[in-house]
Amino acid sequence: MKNIQVLIDSLPTNKLEATNYRINEAEMERLGDNEIRVKTIAFAITAGTRAGLQGSASYAGAPTAGRVMNATGVGEVVESNDTRLSVGDRVLGPLGWQSYSEHRAEALNKIDSKRNPEDYLGPLGVNGLTAYFGLLSVARPKAGELVMVSAAAGSVGHLVGQMARIKECQVLGVMGSDSKGEILKNQLGFDTVVNYKDPNYRQSLKEATEPGVDVYFDNTGGMILGSALFRMNVGGRIACCGVVSQYDTNSPEPGPKGIPGLLVNKRLEMKGFVVFDFEDRYEEARSEISGWMDSGKLISLVDGVSGLDAAPDAFVDLLAGGNIGTRVVRVSPD
Amino acid sequence: MKNIQVLIDSLPTNKLEATNYRINEAEMERLGDNEIRVKTIAFAITAGTRAGLQGSASYAGAPTAGRVMNATGVGEVVESNDTRLSVGDRVLGPLGWQSYSEHRAEALNKIDSKRNPEDYLGPLGVNGLTAYFGLLSVARPKAGELVMVSAAAGSVGHLVGQMARIKECQVLGVMGSDSKGEILKNQLGFDTVVNYKDPNYRQSLKEATEPGVDVYFDNTGGMILGSALFRMNVGGRIACCGVVSQYDTNSPEPGPKGIPGLLVNKRLEMKGFVVFDFEDRYEEARSEISGWMDSGKLISLVDGVSGLDAAPDAFVDLLAGGNIGTRVVRVSPD
Repeated sequence: MKNIQVLIDSLPTNKLEATNYRINEAEMERLGDNEIRVKTIAFAITAGTRAGLQGSASYAGAPTAGRVMNATGVGEVVESNDTRLSVGDRVLGPLGWQSYSEHRAEALNKIDSKRNPEDYLGPLGVNGLTAYFGLLSVARPKAGELVMVSAAAGSVGHLVGQMARIKECQVLGVMGSDSKGEILKNQLGFDTVVNYKDPNYRQSLKEATEPGVDVYFDNTGGMILGSALFRMNVGGRIACCGVVSQYDTNSPEPGPKGIPGLLVNKRLEMKGFVVFDFEDRYEEARSEISGWMDSGKLISLVDGVSGLDAAPDAFVDLLAGGNIGTRVVRVSPD
Repeated sequence: MKNIQVLIDSLPTNKLEATNYRINEAEMERLGDNEIRVKTIAFAITAGTRAGLQGSASYAGAPTAGRVMNATGVGEVVESNDTRLSVGDRVLGPLGWQSYSEHRAEALNKIDSKRNPEDYLGPLGVNGLTAYFGLLSVARPKAGELVMVSAAAGSVGHLVGQMARIKECQVLGVMGSDSKGEILKNQLGFDTVVNYKDPNYRQSLKEATEPGVDVYFDNTGGMILGSALFRMNVGGRIACCGVVSQYDTNSPEPGPKGIPGLLVNKRLEMKGFVVFDFEDRYEEARSEISGWMDSGKLISLVDGVSGLDAAPDAFVDLLAGGNIGTRVVRVSPD
């Protein structure tokens, strides 16, 4: 039996291209002691993994040429040498861009087989938990406040906006196409949207943010962060989640103007976070999020493509803003 | 009787010059109902007032050509039409660069006549309160942590470093001359100092901040903030107090690189503050600070000049980093 893999062929020197990847067929080896073999159902592609391809990471397992591309995926246990997981169990874990993978039980999380496994790549997975903790624990909006979110149609952003609505905030989404904006307003209940590619973006943002922004959930950094700083209210909070504007380049921009001057004048708090710091509260969060999904308050938008060989183009397209919701690659769907 | 005043003659177009000011002799008018006349003993010059000269402020009383230059000062009541203050009382208030001024009682704070009035321009005044709340309430260092402070020999910085020592932190001061650094180490107990004008600054900072900075108290913004960001530990806190590197110019720099990327990766918190937000806790703070002064734990460095006509040059020199400690202009000393 063969394992189909997508390997990193070369690290990108500037913008990522599909040719930075290549398909590989590997022989499946005998499963080791205490190992578990998982057949990939689907995996998510997220902008954050682009940062790992910048070549400066030095941790064990860092993405580099010749390795299988990293991704969080959902799969089914097909072989197990650990009593903690059995054949047929559904799991969430670092499966990568491949049809099969081998893990220790500690690296996998058993998921509820009755749910659509793709929920664990969206609201119940890293994206949903990132939205949840970044918004509720880091940015801490109060009912009635104006919450602005960038990359608002993205895998994290579309959930942030809905969670802010659930918390009775006004929600402004910033995204890069008007058609995305329509979906955010009509399907997900965003109050207002602004297209950052519009030549009148600054003026539109100003009008959409009267009388000012209380919370800004920043997925992009760069120009949009800069524009948000000028619209923040005194005492506003900025949750720094990601820097998608700066991942797909070899020459990152300088920081936005007004730092630290605007932080002082407006007593702003800017706080970076990574979701893994909240690991001990994942179950509590998943319970609340699944409640919102079950009652129809939270909708998971999935932007799926089929087949491992579609993954490189899907990633390049994602970095250009092509996705609406969570980009999922379906490898071996139900 | 004449009132000698220093007026703003013109707003600076780039760097502030002494010629932006002119001396004026005004007739003293009859004191109005409920007004109090104060004879200036001394006033402080602080970098922050340079920001008010950039011409964008629109509030009532904003500095503009023809007005008396603004400053916080200490003085003695010489005439009073309000029973709340009597002739001979010592007060702290917005006296300005002039020998006499008239106020409502609400604008003045009675001070302890047994103390050196200059203490109220340093540790017991805005500078000391800024250091106290910025360090202890905003940055929140724990014993044993490394606290870095920029403009460390300045009116706020030299107090921040000593307060951090009192809280059993390691203290690193960044300043612009080696002679200032010697005073910080030898007189004020800073553990290490780094001169940002040194061509090897980045390397010296790296060596002085092993194994990383936990708290950075930022008085400068600009390059020093940028250098600090790269030395912060995971979970570090940055208190944004002032932007002295950007005040005396008409072309502010862009923000430092690494914002927001480093904030995310290192889970940093950056928080701007203004001391007036802590007004309801001033008395509690003054009580603790005067205790530190009385027990010799906190030393107030005063860099004084004599006479109103020395004020413009003293301000220009301050913006070039000429002062060590609080710059005070003595108008009519005891």
